[in-house]
Amino acid sequence: MVKLNGADVIVVGSGFFGLTIAERISSELGKSVLVLEKRNHIGGNAYSYKDDATGVEVHKYGSHLFHTNNEKVWKYVNKFSHFNNYQHRVLAIAHGQYLNLPINLQTISNVFGKIFTPQEAKKFFEGLSREVIEENLEARALNLVGKELYEILIKGYTEKQWGTSTTDLPASIINRLPVRNNLDSRYFTDLYQGLPIEGYSDLFGKMIDSKNITVELNIDFFSVKEFIESDQLVVYTGPLDRFFNYKHGVLGWRTVDFEFQTIPLDDFQGNAVINYCDREVPYTRIHEFFHLHPERTKKFGKTIIAKEYSRVALEGDEPYYPINSKSDRDKLLKYREEKIPENYFLGGRLGTYKYLDMHMAIASALSLYETKISRWFED
Amino acid sequence: MVKLNGADVIVVGSGFFGLTIAERISSELGKSVLVLEKRNHIGGNAYSYKDDATGVEVHKYGSHLFHTNNEKVWKYVNKFSHFNNYQHRVLAIAHGQYLNLPINLQTISNVFGKIFTPQEAKKFFEGLSREVIEENLEARALNLVGKELYEILIKGYTEKQWGTSTTDLPASIINRLPVRNNLDSRYFTDLYQGLPIEGYSDLFGKMIDSKNITVELNIDFFSVKEFIESDQLVVYTGPLDRFFNYKHGVLGWRTVDFEFQTIPLDDFQGNAVINYCDREVPYTRIHEFFHLHPERTKKFGKTIIAKEYSRVALEGDEPYYPINSKSDRDKLLKYREEKIPENYFLGGRLGTYKYLDMHMAIASALSLYETKISRWFED
Repeated sequence: MVKLNGADVIVVGSGFFGLTIAERISSELGKSVLVLEKRNHIGGNAYSYKDDATGVEVHKYGSHLFHTNNEKVWKYVNKFSHFNNYQHRVLAIAHGQYLNLPINLQTISNVFGKIFTPQEAKKFFEGLSREVIEENLEARALNLVGKELYEILIKGYTEKQWGTSTTDLPASIINRLPVRNNLDSRYFTDLYQGLPIEGYSDLFGKMIDSKNITVELNIDFFSVKEFIESDQLVVYTGPLDRFFNYKHGVLGWRTVDFEFQTIPLDDFQGNAVINYCDREVPYTRIHEFFHLHPERTKKFGKTIIAKEYSRVALEGDEPYYPINSKSDRDKLLKYREEKIPENYFLGGRLGTYKYLDMHMAIASALSLYETKISRWFED
Repeated sequence: MVKLNGADVIVVGSGFFGLTIAERISSELGKSVLVLEKRNHIGGNAYSYKDDATGVEVHKYGSHLFHTNNEKVWKYVNKFSHFNNYQHRVLAIAHGQYLNLPINLQTISNVFGKIFTPQEAKKFFEGLSREVIEENLEARALNLVGKELYEILIKGYTEKQWGTSTTDLPASIINRLPVRNNLDSRYFTDLYQGLPIEGYSDLFGKMIDSKNITVELNIDFFSVKEFIESDQLVVYTGPLDRFFNYKHGVLGWRTVDFEFQTIPLDDFQGNAVINYCDREVPYTRIHEFFHLHPERTKKFGKTIIAKEYSRVALEGDEPYYPINSKSDRDKLLKYREEKIPENYFLGGRLGTYKYLDMHMAIASALSLYETKISRWFED
């Protein structure tokens, strides 16, 4: 039985949001924090571990690339770990060729078999007919990038991601398709990029390395919720709908399944992530994790890959991406109108039903800490 | 008239080698250093300046990319400047398509019109006939990468670089052609990469920011050499052959000419450097400097490019790359056997007739300082 009554603060969930809150409260206020985690490890979906047999830093929930333009967030994470200089680049394999993603001059030139300069690409996109009524995703994508790029890069991949035809998907799923009229092949253009040199677990370990912080794994918050006192602060980062016992219905999420394989090769695919855009290939992506740490030069003759498959999350599945359908948005509004006890704060990706990159979760936690939590203790 | 007699040390030339020596002697030993520079600016070929009309950091002698695996060198330069996270990537335009350089899986796949995996590329290179006798550069290149890649990427470019047919060039010019059996498209794979955030001039200025260091521009060392006293230390980084008054002949260098243009476009070519491999295009490369500083987001609606042309250096030209012909190597040996006065040290690219990247020049200077110069003052 977890002892709740010793802690000033209970943090529910140990992703970047929860750990940032715990770290700030511990370091800045010297309060005691109990972190409750349902899984058998901390770190949420950013969790990684070093596989002993291969030396590979395995990202258990898919490649997590740290990137931010927020200097404050970058300085914050760098307090706990050095970062390597890895910059993510994604290639697609589609219709028998490698193509850069996001779409850039090289992608367009490969698809059309002739050089596009920045000016020519600009003209190409401006010249696309905008006459298709955007009644579904396909129509909008055609307006945004034209038939050729859509059919090679968007159609098959999107249908695998959503498990349905692009003509049956609402146009609203894509506001814009990132297209670059230059040759920048980085996946992210942020000023600060890299991966924690000893992996995410090392980083998370440093964040909670304080006598003020206790972590309890394998525990469901709702099994102990009733014992919480009203003078204990609770920062809840679990699913929003679960918090209210699904009273307005279940919020929809997409999940992904990973098929991990250890392969007796130095290099299976030559890149950290390759997107497979053709509809006939059952997976959406293959991750090959050793590419994320080019500074680890020791060779083991083995590599670990993970094939990624996308589908709707069912009960018990890990939620990844909010589906955000009309019905989801209606439910969300209702949940947001719900009153929560004064000693509770909700946050993080699951707690807000918002897709947050790691740096956004940290920024959001720092902001919650500064504007609300630190004051809560002042009063 | 420059006053030589006040200085403990005369440094001849203000490239990375000379400035590192000056900085070390000043900071560590507190000795006074006089830097003599023939040009009207310091920094050697790494010199850059911010063009006011466009905001562009112009690299006057072509794009200079800082990259190193040497942690000591990286820490050293970071004492004087922050660095951005720019990682250099080069594309070729050849036979009507963009191709990644160095040759990687994407290059090979584009050239052959089908996907090569790491294993397939390995097999391809291993399977190349090695039967051609390597009597010239073309023969060696064919053995290394095969006919298709050679003809598209190597032949035309090399002929423009050297101004002569590849069948007339010695095989020894290329020991190997860097080929990657993966999708890494970085030009350098070094652990530390980036550009000084305020440009090289700012970095150089910080290096010599000491009352111990005086810089005299527009001065030819040989016009004042006779006034140097035997208790003054001289670190000479000028041309080796010139130091000995060309007594064993002139060492051969390649030079490059730049044709600078300001163009009223946000983006001319979409990348910092594009190599033009086709023989019919007269230049070898086009630099577009604003891409080197993606963190400078202010738009001026103008961009500066420089077309690069390669040729043999004649008298008065800037030496760039040692030609290193048989005759050069013979002369070099003779120069190396020459005695130099006890108070002289020779170093740097010109002083050793060796192509040195910036980080190599710094490492070499730090080493000379630690092993020889600091001891010279102890004695």
